[in-house]
Amino acid sequence: MASTDKPDLEAPSKSEIPPPPPPRPYGVDFFTVGVAFRVLLFATTLVSVIVMVTSDQTKTIFVPGSNIGFPVPAKFNHSPAFIYFVAALSVACFYSIITTLASLSVIFKPYSSTKLLLHFAIWDVLILGIVASATGTAGGVAYIGLKGNSHVNWNKICNSYDTFCHHVESSIFISLLAAILLVLLSIISTVSLYDRIPK
Amino acid sequence: MASTDKPDLEAPSKSEIPPPPPPRPYGVDFFTVGVAFRVLLFATTLVSVIVMVTSDQTKTIFVPGSNIGFPVPAKFNHSPAFIYFVAALSVACFYSIITTLASLSVIFKPYSSTKLLLHFAIWDVLILGIVASATGTAGGVAYIGLKGNSHVNWNKICNSYDTFCHHVESSIFISLLAAILLVLLSIISTVSLYDRIPK
Repeated sequence: MASTDKPDLEAPSKSEIPPPPPPRPYGVDFFTVGVAFRVLLFATTLVSVIVMVTSDQTKTIFVPGSNIGFPVPAKFNHSPAFIYFVAALSVACFYSIITTLASLSVIFKPYSSTKLLLHFAIWDVLILGIVASATGTAGGVAYIGLKGNSHVNWNKICNSYDTFCHHVESSIFISLLAAILLVLLSIISTVSLYDRIPK
Repeated sequence: MASTDKPDLEAPSKSEIPPPPPPRPYGVDFFTVGVAFRVLLFATTLVSVIVMVTSDQTKTIFVPGSNIGFPVPAKFNHSPAFIYFVAALSVACFYSIITTLASLSVIFKPYSSTKLLLHFAIWDVLILGIVASATGTAGGVAYIGLKGNSHVNWNKICNSYDTFCHHVESSIFISLLAAILLVLLSIISTVSLYDRIPK
């Protein structure tokens, strides 16, 4: 008897189940976090480029045994690695501006943003590849400048050009932050795509 | 009259619309393409590491004005950049083995693979960052070896150590291919996630 009564008791309660909540406005959360990261990306890439470009330092080198000195400058564009670095970070800076504006347009006018997320996820990865390789290139050359390489008689230069080296080091460190931001942005885009798949 | 007839004529045709096709077996296509790319990734990273590690070359340098010569070796581990390169490519090689096996397990036993795709998409990006930075680091140092840098008196060494330089150049070129494969793999994972979102 008890087993036949139970369905009768439950039947009305089933009809009282509230309707499922409306689907949450897709993309707003992830896009808001994304915009914050993209603004940070803009700041890091811009600062990195500025610090690298303003790294000029001129030292007066004296001819041994005399008072005759001549100025020897150290500039970032003496090294192809640093030129590539500035070019790559500039591209990333420009990219961060475009994607920040695109993200803002989604936040203020929440239309179907799934395709934009796909584009973000793909482009973030490409820009990450460029920024990571540029950071590596500049880092490899800067390390030789810092430590030298006795095997091939490449002398360190950071004992003479301290300001130049501090600029280069800071710039590379900031671009490493930019690369980490791009990894996080790429993960955010991917996870927000994953979040839209019905489980 | 004609306008009221039309709905009557269309009504039966609507009921004859065939049912929608069954959902396609998710993941198999993308995972098959992915496995091919991951096997290629394994091959490129392995070859890149082997070519770099076997780049040793020894030259006999003669003291000027005499017949006394002594051997001067060039090895990849004379440069921290190349050591980092070998470590990073080894990690990528190991990663390619694990993900190939994981992809194969999905192909032969097609269970819900969405979460695996998410993990792939995230890890591919991380490994891409490592491989791209390693390629950049080794490339920056190798370029100095090839061209030298007159501003800081770093002499080129590739005119003496031709075999060593050919090995290093080939290794870096192959690792560039590995980085491109990782970009493509990351895009494949992302697009296959996007493909599962109901439009």
